[in-house]
This record gives sequence, structure tokens and C-alpha cells, in this order.
Amino acid sequence: AGKSDHHSAERCVDFPVSVVLPAGGTGERTGLQTPKQFCTFLGRPLISYTIQAFESMPWIQSIVVAVAKENMDLMTDIIQRFKHRKVRAVPGGSTRHRSICNGVLALGEEERPAVGRPKVVIIHDAVRPFVEEDFLCKIAMAAKEQGAAGAIRPLVSTVIATTSEGYLDHSLERAKYRASEMPQGFTYDVISQAYQRCSESDFEFGTECLHLALQYCGTNAKLIEGPPTLWKVTYKRDLAAAESIIKETLSRSACVITGGLAEAVNLADALRKAVGALDMELDIVPDLMGDNARCLLKEWNFIQVSVSHSCLSEVEAILVALEAENRALLHPVVVIWVHFSRTDELPVSERAPTAITELASTAKHRNILIYGIQLKQSKHWERSASRVAEIASALIRERSPALVGQLLQA
Amino acid sequence: AGKSDHHSAERCVDFPVSVVLPAGGTGERTGLQTPKQFCTFLGRPLISYTIQAFESMPWIQSIVVAVAKENMDLMTDIIQRFKHRKVRAVPGGSTRHRSICNGVLALGEEERPAVGRPKVVIIHDAVRPFVEEDFLCKIAMAAKEQGAAGAIRPLVSTVIATTSEGYLDHSLERAKYRASEMPQGFTYDVISQAYQRCSESDFEFGTECLHLALQYCGTNAKLIEGPPTLWKVTYKRDLAAAESIIKETLSRSACVITGGLAEAVNLADALRKAVGALDMELDIVPDLMGDNARCLLKEWNFIQVSVSHSCLSEVEAILVALEAENRALLHPVVVIWVHFSRTDELPVSERAPTAITELASTAKHRNILIYGIQLKQSKHWERSASRVAEIASALIRERSPALVGQLLQA
Ligand SMILES: [Mg+2]
Ligand SMILES: [Mg+2]
Repeated sequence: AGKSDHHSAERCVDFPVSVVLPAGGTGERTGLQTPKQFCTFLGRPLISYTIQAFESMPWIQSIVVAVAKENMDLMTDIIQRFKHRKVRAVPGGSTRHRSICNGVLALGEEERPAVGRPKVVIIHDAVRPFVEEDFLCKIAMAAKEQGAAGAIRPLVSTVIATTSEGYLDHSLERAKYRASEMPQGFTYDVISQAYQRCSESDFEFGTECLHLALQYCGTNAKLIEGPPTLWKVTYKRDLAAAESIIKETLSRSACVITGGLAEAVNLADALRKAVGALDMELDIVPDLMGDNARCLLKEWNFIQVSVSHSCLSEVEAILVALEAENRALLHPVVVIWVHFSRTDELPVSERAPTAITELASTAKHRNILIYGIQLKQSKHWERSASRVAEIASALIRERSPALVGQLLQA
Repeated sequence: AGKSDHHSAERCVDFPVSVVLPAGGTGERTGLQTPKQFCTFLGRPLISYTIQAFESMPWIQSIVVAVAKENMDLMTDIIQRFKHRKVRAVPGGSTRHRSICNGVLALGEEERPAVGRPKVVIIHDAVRPFVEEDFLCKIAMAAKEQGAAGAIRPLVSTVIATTSEGYLDHSLERAKYRASEMPQGFTYDVISQAYQRCSESDFEFGTECLHLALQYCGTNAKLIEGPPTLWKVTYKRDLAAAESIIKETLSRSACVITGGLAEAVNLADALRKAVGALDMELDIVPDLMGDNARCLLKEWNFIQVSVSHSCLSEVEAILVALEAENRALLHPVVVIWVHFSRTDELPVSERAPTAITELASTAKHRNILIYGIQLKQSKHWERSASRVAEIASALIRERSPALVGQLLQA
């Protein structure tokens, strides 16, 4: 979400909003040992992506994560490692409702003086990382007005009732029903009353907060159709889908640094044309000084075009700048060194192929992935330029740690 | 599914079974222009994967695909290109039920004399490519016994009823309901009678065959819980999940060809240990002659270890053998040339790096992806071997066409 989204959301949501993330699940449906919320994508646990989505919205004041006791240390480590600022971890309960209830209670006992009791509490799943700001804003507004609001989606399959012997009893008319999804929003008063009034049986067997609000507070939730991106990472295949969405988001654009030399600028222009056909945008700059430093704050991919010999020093300068910004904290950053060699020049592979290997090996520990591509200046260099674009685009999309330090030929 | 599955299934299913695949959908939910069933994965349309799954089961006698008129040429082309043998395409109708009905009618008018009218008709979705033989067998058996049978799955979300104003009316008790999925099976008599008796309104607005069998033939379908792999490719994220499952299936094992030389065999053994940690199995053979030719029929990945100079000729021999078997018809085959150079030997990159590039460029048109990896025989070669394993494993998993012909350094 861009800056302008934040601004319009802040204009609407002028009341305090906090978030509760129940994350006590054991992930049995993925068929993996690690609970889904702690599975890593490009080196970072899923729950950190979800936290970051909320943290990036200025109108969210605080986030409480309810985790199982045995994962408390892990969660604390995640909060520290990825420098999450608005988050507190509290012990989860033995069921979903007990975990959410613990989270809501914790919101009533905020320790930071600047953060008051929220007007609205958003409940979300740790395993739905792609929550969008404008939709969340709608839920928060509707919750404030109606007391409760929830995301719904159309049913993908027909829902049927079965007999006790395992035969078809009847099928439901699909148009009349919806799937209840997350996020859901409640005024603090409604959700905390619902949990004060509900029964042990609700705590033990229930899962649906909207139902508690209706039964114990008489609040009929406003239902709002959400985007398909709200889906819940449930099965093993969902892990692949989530990784693919994350990688696609990181691969939409790259910054090309030319040094200002004419040959490099020509090559950068040819690359821009070629990657455009591959749905990637290039921001071409001579260097990362002054205004161009904006690239360091927004790009996840850098292509350094070198026509000189002292080329890896330029890549080293990018690394220093990325480190200074702590840019690779949340996602691996790709840096591709494109060596556009003069015809009279020896190819790098005959001189020092190990320099890039060593640099890449160090950078990898800092979450920066370095690759090299060589092409020769010749009559046919434009054909090679489209090969460079194809290779660079594949490297950026795949973000493969196994291939760092390789010097590829265009 | 392996050979033994086929045998046990054939023992159970001793009656003729045919399949109808309604594939008239327009794919609007993926947000893509191409209907989902025609989206390509590693160069092959999704529907061809689904067809292949059924075609590989010997007890399935024929498959009818119902496609929209505007896609009939495309479908015919797919059938020819991927050499599908049991399939016929018929025109779909304007709704799902009309398409399925056309498919069932076509089964009554089989032209091949050896293929009779089926006892059981399986209805499946073209966009559920991962149907498993043992589950399909259960559906076919239950359909024969009960007249109708269908796959069900637990509900992932709570299902709720909404008021006309968009508020929560009530939520369903999740345990009592199931999602109705595909495949479904019917005796030919039940499904054809159901379509003869049902109304125009059913044809126009209905979607659920189980419901027609109940209403018009009094047949309560047997419901059987299916595996999560039955899921339907519906949204854009499902395309990524499907591709990931296909790639994973192709990456479980590789065949290493050593030529029998001691150095090569040692390297192969070190590779086996290293890729084992990456969840890949290696079948190590000296060559692809005699019994070892079995690898050509079952492996999707080949690693040629060369310690001699005339190394690419060995890769060329693999290509010839793969071509002879038409091995790369259904999936891209990966061939990795690992050059294990003697210390006194010049690295290949200083002699003929273009030879592998040219060979790879030709092979790519035949759906064979060639990559090269170099390592030097030295005291530290075992460390390099684990790098070779890491790189080879990444190349095999990613199957990137952009990186073919590259000579990587371990
Ligand atoms: Mg709930
Ligand atoms: Mg149906």
C-alpha cells in the first residue's frame, strides 16, 4: 500500500484501532511439522509478514499476538530480529476463542502511556498475510458504526448436508450462503462483553466471534465482501502460493545504475524495453546519490551496469548503501552486476571469477543476493541485451540462494 | 501412481468406466484472459495434465472433454500435440450442466467398436489436475454399487447466512456440513436418466449433479472424503500452487551417469549424500545401456558426470536417447553436465563455453533444458561436491528456461 492509501485511511479511521492475532495453531493441515504461521518464506516466518502488513498502516496503534507457551521464545525472537515495534506477544489459550480472549484482555492492560484502550479491535489470522489497507479500513469503520463487522467471500464449492451413514441429505442453495473469513472488527465493548458473557462450551467448541457478538450482545455484524487475497494459508499448496505472491510483489521493478556512461545508458534503455515485455519496470539512474537515493528506500532489485574494469567496487558501494539503510531486513535484496565488456577486454571469467563469488558469499549472510551477467560490446549487442533482460528477470523472480556468485553469459 | 496401484485398481474396477470433463469455463476468477484449463504450466496446458492423469489409468476406457466452440480448435491441437489417445472433444453447452449432458450423450455414441457404453461415468473438473488413482477407484466402485458417489472435503471456513441487507443472519454448525468436490461417479443409467428428466431451470441454474441424481432418480449419493490435492484451480494463486506441485513431482529424483570412472563414481556418491539432505534421490548408473535404460523411461532429470575432454558428446548421447523415447513430450527434461576437471586441465570456460550454449539452445526447442556445472579435482573437491548438489538441486527444482546453456562454477 502506498503513502496515499495511508493518508485516505487515516482521514477515515480517526479513532484508536488495535489488532489481535491468534497464532496458537499447530498447522496439522499443511502436513508439516512447523506450525504454518512460523513457516519461513525467503527466510522470514509467515507471521512476520502479517505483522508487517498491520505495522505499515499508521492508524493501527498496537498488535497483540497470542501464541502457545512453547512458541513464546520463538515469537519473541521474531519480534526482535525483524524489529517489529507495535507488537506484544501474550500466551495463547487451549482453543481459538481462549487465545483471542487473552489478546483482547491484554489490550485492556496496555503498558505504554501513549497507547489508550482501542475503540475498535480487529481480529485477524496470523496465516492471512496479504491483508489490504483499504479493506481493513472498511472493516474498522463498519465495526465502529455497527459494533461488529466481518469479511465474507462467495462459496467456492456447493455445501451439502450428509446423513449419519455418509450419504447426501441435501445441498444448500449456494447463492444464499457465504464463507465467513477474516479480518473481523468489533468495538472493544462488544468483543470484551461477548467474552465475559459466553459459556465454557463456547470457549471450548466455538470458533466464530461474529456468532458470540450476536448471541451475547445482540449485535448483527455487517458483512463485507473481501478480495480473494484474504485467503488463509491452510494446506501445503498454500505455502507455495504465498511464496509465489511474495516473490511476484518483490519482482515488479528494479533500479538500474549506469554510472552515466553512454554505453551503459544505451544498454539500460535496451533492458528497459526488454523487461517491459516481461512485466517488469526499470528505474534508470546514474548513481544512488541525492534524489536517486529514493531507490534505496523502495527497490528490492538493483542492476549495476559496469563498462569499466573496477566494476565490483560499484557493487560494493551498493552493498554499503543497502546496509546503511538496513534495506534487506524484511526481504532479500537482489543485486545483479552486468559487465558490459569492451571488445578488446579479456572476459572476467579469465581474470578473477572468484571475486564475485567471494563477495556474494559474504553478502548472502546479510540477505543480499549477488549475481553477475557478462556481455560483450559488439555489432550484435542488442540481441545480447534481450538475453541479459531474460536472465536478470529470471534471477530476480526466483531469488535463488544457490546461484549467488555465478557469472552468467548473455 | 505406480504400476502396483494400476494393478490393484484394475482388480477392483472390472467394469467399463469413462470420464466426462466439462471445460467450458471462462476463468474469470483467476483474473487472467486465458481460461484456467488452458493456462500453461512448464509449456503444457492444465487440461492436458488432467487428461494425462486419467489416461495413465488402464481401467479408464475413454474421456470426453466438453469445450466451448471457440476453443474447439485449441483443444484439438492440444490432443494432437501431447498425443492423447483416449480423448474426444465435443462442443460444450452454455452452462455447466449442458456441457456435462453433452459429454454423457457422446458416451452413448462411441465410434470405436472396442469401446462399449460405460457402466460408470466419472464427472471431473478439467481444473483439478491432481486426481489420484486409488481415490478415483473408490468413487467408481461406490458409484457402481450405489448409483452415485461424490468427493467431499471438510469446510475450511464457517458458512453463514446473510440477511438481504448484508448482515449476519446465522452461522451453520460446521461439523454438519461438507464441501462437495469432484470427482463424482454415476452409473450411466442414473446420470443419463437424470439429464433426460431434469428441467430447463436445472440446466440453466443448477451446478450439482448429485442433486439431479437425488431429485430425478431418487439416488442418494455415497459421499467419500477425498485428499486435499483434489482442490480446484480457481484463483490466480492456485496457478502458482499447481505449478509448484508439478515442479515438486518432477524433482524428487535424478539419474546420475558416471561413465564408470572412479573419480566420477566418487563424485556421484558425494552428490547422493548431499542431495539426500535436500530431499532428492539419485539413481547412479555407469551408462544408459541395457537395464539402465529404465532410467530413460522414468526419470525427468539427468546428471552426466564427465572427467574426460570429449564431454559434451556424452550429453549429446543422452539427448539422442531422450528423443528416441519422446521423453520430453509431457514435461521438460533437465540434463545437467557436471564437468569434473583434472587439475592440469584448462577450465572449459577458457576453451569452448559456446558449445554448451549452442547445444542448450537447440535442445530447448525440444523441451530439454541443459545446464553445465564445473568443479576442479583438488584436495577440497568434497566441499565443491556439496555446492554442485545445491546448484543442481536448484536448477532441477526451478526448471528455468532463461538459464539454459550456462556453465556454473561449484
Ligand atoms: Mg472468529
Ligand atoms: Mg456437479
